[in-house]
Amino acid sequence: MEPACLLTHPATGPYAAGQAGQHDRYDAVRTTSTALAAPLSPEDCQVQSMPDCSPVKWHLAHTTWFFETFLLTRFHPSYAVFHPQYRMLFNSYYNAIGAKHPRPQRGLLSRPALGEVLRYRQHADAAMHELISRLGGNDPDFDALLELGLNHEQQHQELILSDVKHMLSANPLRPVYVAPGPSALPPATPAGWTRYAGGITRIGHDGRGFGFDNEGPAHDVLLTPFYLADRLVTQHEYLAFIRDGGYKRPELWLSLGWDLVCAQGWQAPLYWERQRDDWRVFTLRGMQDLELQAPVTHVSYFEADAYARWARVRLPREAEWEHAARQLPDGALAGRANMLENGHLDARPAPVRNGSGGPVQLFGDAWEWTSSAYDAYPGFKPDAGAVGEYNGKFMCGQYVLRGGSCATPRDHIRPSYRNFFPPEARWQFSGIRLARDA
Amino acid sequence: MEPACLLTHPATGPYAAGQAGQHDRYDAVRTTSTALAAPLSPEDCQVQSMPDCSPVKWHLAHTTWFFETFLLTRFHPSYAVFHPQYRMLFNSYYNAIGAKHPRPQRGLLSRPALGEVLRYRQHADAAMHELISRLGGNDPDFDALLELGLNHEQQHQELILSDVKHMLSANPLRPVYVAPGPSALPPATPAGWTRYAGGITRIGHDGRGFGFDNEGPAHDVLLTPFYLADRLVTQHEYLAFIRDGGYKRPELWLSLGWDLVCAQGWQAPLYWERQRDDWRVFTLRGMQDLELQAPVTHVSYFEADAYARWARVRLPREAEWEHAARQLPDGALAGRANMLENGHLDARPAPVRNGSGGPVQLFGDAWEWTSSAYDAYPGFKPDAGAVGEYNGKFMCGQYVLRGGSCATPRDHIRPSYRNFFPPEARWQFSGIRLARDA
Amino acid sequence: MEPACLLTHPATGPYAAGQAGQHDRYDAVRTTSTALAAPLSPEDCQVQSMPDCSPVKWHLAHTTWFFETFLLTRFHPSYAVFHPQYRMLFNSYYNAIGAKHPRPQRGLLSRPALGEVLRYRQHADAAMHELISRLGGNDPDFDALLELGLNHEQQHQELILSDVKHMLSANPLRPVYVAPGPSALPPATPAGWTRYAGGITRIGHDGRGFGFDNEGPAHDVLLTPFYLADRLVTQHEYLAFIRDGGYKRPELWLSLGWDLVCAQGWQAPLYWERQRDDWRVFTLRGMQDLELQAPVTHVSYFEADAYARWARVRLPREAEWEHAARQLPDGALAGRANMLENGHLDARPAPVRNGSGGPVQLFGDAWEWTSSAYDAYPGFKPDAGAVGEYNGKFMCGQYVLRGGSCATPRDHIRPSYRNFFPPEARWQFSGIRLARDA
Amino acid sequence: MEPACLLTHPATGPYAAGQAGQHDRYDAVRTTSTALAAPLSPEDCQVQSMPDCSPVKWHLAHTTWFFETFLLTRFHPSYAVFHPQYRMLFNSYYNAIGAKHPRPQRGLLSRPALGEVLRYRQHADAAMHELISRLGGNDPDFDALLELGLNHEQQHQELILSDVKHMLSANPLRPVYVAPGPSALPPATPAGWTRYAGGITRIGHDGRGFGFDNEGPAHDVLLTPFYLADRLVTQHEYLAFIRDGGYKRPELWLSLGWDLVCAQGWQAPLYWERQRDDWRVFTLRGMQDLELQAPVTHVSYFEADAYARWARVRLPREAEWEHAARQLPDGALAGRANMLENGHLDARPAPVRNGSGGPVQLFGDAWEWTSSAYDAYPGFKPDAGAVGEYNGKFMCGQYVLRGGSCATPRDHIRPSYRNFFPPEARWQFSGIRLARDA
Repeated sequence: MEPACLLTHPATGPYAAGQAGQHDRYDAVRTTSTALAAPLSPEDCQVQSMPDCSPVKWHLAHTTWFFETFLLTRFHPSYAVFHPQYRMLFNSYYNAIGAKHPRPQRGLLSRPALGEVLRYRQHADAAMHELISRLGGNDPDFDALLELGLNHEQQHQELILSDVKHMLSANPLRPVYVAPGPSALPPATPAGWTRYAGGITRIGHDGRGFGFDNEGPAHDVLLTPFYLADRLVTQHEYLAFIRDGGYKRPELWLSLGWDLVCAQGWQAPLYWERQRDDWRVFTLRGMQDLELQAPVTHVSYFEADAYARWARVRLPREAEWEHAARQLPDGALAGRANMLENGHLDARPAPVRNGSGGPVQLFGDAWEWTSSAYDAYPGFKPDAGAVGEYNGKFMCGQYVLRGGSCATPRDHIRPSYRNFFPPEARWQFSGIRLARDA
Repeated sequence: MEPACLLTHPATGPYAAGQAGQHDRYDAVRTTSTALAAPLSPEDCQVQSMPDCSPVKWHLAHTTWFFETFLLTRFHPSYAVFHPQYRMLFNSYYNAIGAKHPRPQRGLLSRPALGEVLRYRQHADAAMHELISRLGGNDPDFDALLELGLNHEQQHQELILSDVKHMLSANPLRPVYVAPGPSALPPATPAGWTRYAGGITRIGHDGRGFGFDNEGPAHDVLLTPFYLADRLVTQHEYLAFIRDGGYKRPELWLSLGWDLVCAQGWQAPLYWERQRDDWRVFTLRGMQDLELQAPVTHVSYFEADAYARWARVRLPREAEWEHAARQLPDGALAGRANMLENGHLDARPAPVRNGSGGPVQLFGDAWEWTSSAYDAYPGFKPDAGAVGEYNGKFMCGQYVLRGGSCATPRDHIRPSYRNFFPPEARWQFSGIRLARDA
Repeated sequence: MEPACLLTHPATGPYAAGQAGQHDRYDAVRTTSTALAAPLSPEDCQVQSMPDCSPVKWHLAHTTWFFETFLLTRFHPSYAVFHPQYRMLFNSYYNAIGAKHPRPQRGLLSRPALGEVLRYRQHADAAMHELISRLGGNDPDFDALLELGLNHEQQHQELILSDVKHMLSANPLRPVYVAPGPSALPPATPAGWTRYAGGITRIGHDGRGFGFDNEGPAHDVLLTPFYLADRLVTQHEYLAFIRDGGYKRPELWLSLGWDLVCAQGWQAPLYWERQRDDWRVFTLRGMQDLELQAPVTHVSYFEADAYARWARVRLPREAEWEHAARQLPDGALAGRANMLENGHLDARPAPVRNGSGGPVQLFGDAWEWTSSAYDAYPGFKPDAGAVGEYNGKFMCGQYVLRGGSCATPRDHIRPSYRNFFPPEARWQFSGIRLARDA
Repeated sequence: MEPACLLTHPATGPYAAGQAGQHDRYDAVRTTSTALAAPLSPEDCQVQSMPDCSPVKWHLAHTTWFFETFLLTRFHPSYAVFHPQYRMLFNSYYNAIGAKHPRPQRGLLSRPALGEVLRYRQHADAAMHELISRLGGNDPDFDALLELGLNHEQQHQELILSDVKHMLSANPLRPVYVAPGPSALPPATPAGWTRYAGGITRIGHDGRGFGFDNEGPAHDVLLTPFYLADRLVTQHEYLAFIRDGGYKRPELWLSLGWDLVCAQGWQAPLYWERQRDDWRVFTLRGMQDLELQAPVTHVSYFEADAYARWARVRLPREAEWEHAARQLPDGALAGRANMLENGHLDARPAPVRNGSGGPVQLFGDAWEWTSSAYDAYPGFKPDAGAVGEYNGKFMCGQYVLRGGSCATPRDHIRPSYRNFFPPEARWQFSGIRLARDA
């Protein structure tokens, strides 16, 4: 699996890779999904631990459904659908496609079995390769939908990891997904600040290389001067917030956040467990001690916001974040291991750093909550057809996260990427970067 | 599998079978459970389709837990528990045993996998046979708990079937559990009535052979004269109730029942589905046409009661039912096929009939709702110790059902048996027999 | 207000009082309702503190609606309905009458104002007196419905008191309904037991004097020998249960009861509040110290049952209770003050006692939970027409309480009276009498 | 009541009015609140029809509590609190002040009665006049808090009207709050568009005159060119949306909005009722025909957004709205009747129009949903102390509305005012103005 790196070659990225590249890239993305499921039993792939999560089996089928529904049945002259009811069973939320199985009941579908879903994937993969050979690089509509399908599947790869983690954490046996390895965590860099002068700057996807519709159009924004923290908040720093009564002081919290703290009894990030006077944490490698130098993850927007208020600063706006990210040198991502490459998945400080100092850990450590509600950029136009339901209809009640996490495929990370979740979501690999007015 | 028949040999039933009989009976019961799971995939055995149901895997583990907890760790000098956390994971509701995994979250336990649970069973089975060889027939405490454990497992065998049915019905693919076979259903007998003169009669378990604590003590009751219907209400008869607006007329329903009809949109028994002008029904053999001559099943107490009111009669009291059942000749159950024996599971009229006419289908067709709330008989004493939680603490908010269904092991059926479910329960094989005042 | 006492003159009770008696009795009952509302403001009469309660204003209107709907519009040739929409607004649960305002939203009806409801009462009262003058004593249908309406209103008088108590208790100002008076509580009698030999005995209403349909028909029951406690459980005794960990030991509770204890955090009867190491109790006379010699009240069935299990005895069956009550001498109720007569409403030991010892406090202290689920007597026939919805359709999920409380009108108390509430209900004046097998 | 008009005299507005002006203004605001309650009975003032609403009595008490808590107990040397428990009873959400009565249970407080609350108001008013005489115009802290308290009360005046409307609508009697008057509604102006060139513009409160903390600081924003609709969407236009299947087409809705449409069965704005083929609407003047030329009101953000998508345009951003509003001539509000001045409360087209054409109805017709999530302006600092909880902690999950409605006090309207509600809120006087990209 050697995907081209978007950041280092933006103009010749995966989107423009041509037919040969498409075959390779298709295989690379598709086999990554099955590789993620490889350590899991059929039972593991069956369970849905909460309505926001989906079974791994469902992820494997739904990503296939996307290719079948939006590409194979449209472009392939002789494609035979694998099973007529899958169109409904594995539709996630596309009303234009027709009926869909209710989301909270995905875990009830013991059939098709995992093996059958893997056969479904092979069936579609064979037909997709035929299609790439016929149309790849020659039909811009096909190329665009192929790339959309692959990026869609990469999104689900991260969800597989977050959903598996949540599912395993619900089991008192505390199963292990990947074998623990040496942590070899370097000390956190000092918590410095970088100043940005503000003014008019351009953000958003400019149309070169792949981007989701919600990343564009590129447009000017006006920034007031600000500082951005050089790295993410560490578990050590977050522990100080907890010990200072962070979860007991309503004045630190948004009103809805405080309601949740009280109603759900939050006392720490998701997956942290108090054992006597200590905290331990559930990870994909099992229960562990805290890694104090590593970024805190699995915090909600409410916790990120409360931490910032406790620290007497604030969270960055998404335009501030992107403005800073665009000033990193091209090689900023070059040294990053890919997710799962070493079987290591927990967020950790990255060694990358631009020559003149400045922020690190912008890409691939933890999704960074911004204070920006998820909405449409000026001039936003959803994609045409059913895929137009991809992003626009969720522009309400969610916040933008930036940067990608240790569970994000490396070539799925870019400065304009807008991830979004409701403010109470904690099962993603989400962390905190601070900002303040200059 | 040739279990002794309780009804034909009450005094020398399984309870008093001696060591050799115990080995055989233990194997017969235990292998029946795994045989029930044989047609199912690991995924099928993982799913919990509602909080009242449990995954098949959980049933297989919990019944083993019962032997491990109440027999092996008490009587076996060198028994090594299979896994220290199973004591908590597979505890159903015994507070005296300690913590238990929350019931609605049983379906989240992807580990242990099905294979591991089967190894757990083998581990316990080997030790149980050692124990039977040492104590069987010699230690009344052991004998009694062994028999309790086997009857407990038989109860779960019926639950496996009802829970599998519910789980499969939630899947739009409508999977098949057993292959459809010829129905060969004889015409329903005419719906006659048998008169009983009332007076003082004795009901309840008299201590000979096995009985659960809630079946005793035997005691006198005073009955006023009554009639009992000769057979169960058929699907044909129930259809007439539906077509007469049965689900639209509040005057036919108990108040709580009518609330449910409105809130849940009930229009027919569970598993019935309207297709254009017709009704079809989901069964363990897949979707089928109605079997009009067969007893209606999967009705709640509320539906049974409403049907009776519509028919201007009433449901029987449990003492009336037992009084009638005790007058059947000894061989009444002799000709019955065992559940699953022919891979046929749906309720159907039985050919048995006593010499002088009188009621049929009392045993093994459908659990018959009585109008008796589930409570303690005069002089009831729960079993001592943790197994005393078996029945007594559920004596609130439930109704007694009598007779056993087509999913009940044949040697688990007896006249004094008191099954109980909340009045809204519909996923059991529950049907309707009518009664009226004489 | 001097209603005839049903118990001392059953054959010539209110039901047979003739026209003059009907005028008096109608006024007596109706003015009692308005007297109960007299200490309350329009705001007090507006509030509905939970769905089970109703606003006092609604009680005043609904009891009038009963006369308007079932008597005035049927028997009165020229009756003009007070307001056409009241038929719907003040229908409680009679589906046969048509639409009804949703119960949980009764407290939203600021109109009609209290004053308007009082005018509604006067309007109906004038017409009712005309009707009594025309038909009273001459038309058995009318006489029966009149008596039913008056007994219906008496039931609501008790509900007014329990609902007012609940509503005031929700106010941190802890308002006072009646001025505190001297308690002058005699010491509780010793907690003795009376033995009953059992056998066949007759219970149920025999048709002489008024009775609700659910009290009949009179019928024989077979009792095994039993003991009944001579008085109700006192607050002092119940405190010992609490201090012995009664609310912390699951083995003492029915399963559904223990779920409630945990979910709602029950630690004592409703209205008890811990203040440092002491308990105080909210009453209609405001916050008070416990009255240790008085019966404990405002306990659920679950608490009554747990207390009995803790005391290693049980609750009485309703037939046992009625059998004992029928052996009291005729004058047993004669000395009782009527509810509110002295502005004293809290339960307290009664001085009545039959000559030969035996149980006291059977009538008018606290409703006594029995272990009998509320169901139909053999041969039960609901009243014809819409009033037939009065009792029968509630025969599910409730338990029978016997005896009447300090909030029950004195002439509304009789040995055959069957009150019923769900096992979790605590806002009624419900207490505990113990029984045990002989 | 002659409040100075903020818009025409911004520099010498109420905030700088000096001691004499403060006495007058205090009386004007306070008597307006009681005037709003004058048509209501004690029962009307008691009811809380949903958790988002409060009883009128509570509004009257809480606004008084604000003066007592933040001014009288701080500045007045000898002020005697009216009742010690009111500090808790009438605290809305200020955690820094201590405990508060749960919001959903405000309607349970029958005590204090309405009369007592009015005495509470008089008690505080007398002390406030003493305080104004001592400190008014001389103590900037006092002046600021006084003005905050008066603006706070004005906000509650609008809530009184929206909450009364909601409460009365829950009553099938459909009571009337103000007598119907002649509508005399001029035809709606044509639906034109005004173009704005965009660029850098300044929005936010500049510190002259009163403003809430969330309105500042003034700051530059960058706008792309846009069009703003000249007037609000009329009921006639909205009816076309309904008739075109607006409530049946998921592609028009945000995902969360469509969920609500389905779950709650929305088919029209709140208070619209279908009667055969026609729609009628509940207003404060009772049930009426639609006023087709009047702005549609009582729509949620979801409905406003869906309407805009149906019309192939969008909602304005708040900066766009304010930019347009700041270009209106000073006298734009001069001709407006005050809310309730004529007993006329329903939104209607305003005659104001600037000389060169351009938008009308910007102020005082309906709150206009913007597509801007409610968040902090760059450099936002909450007020110090407990009043800092006023706005900042609600900056999550809400959208900004602009312009003020027919229920807003006239001198409470200004271009920088930011109202905010959750996207599902419909009980406010909220309407729709369209925008589109230029």
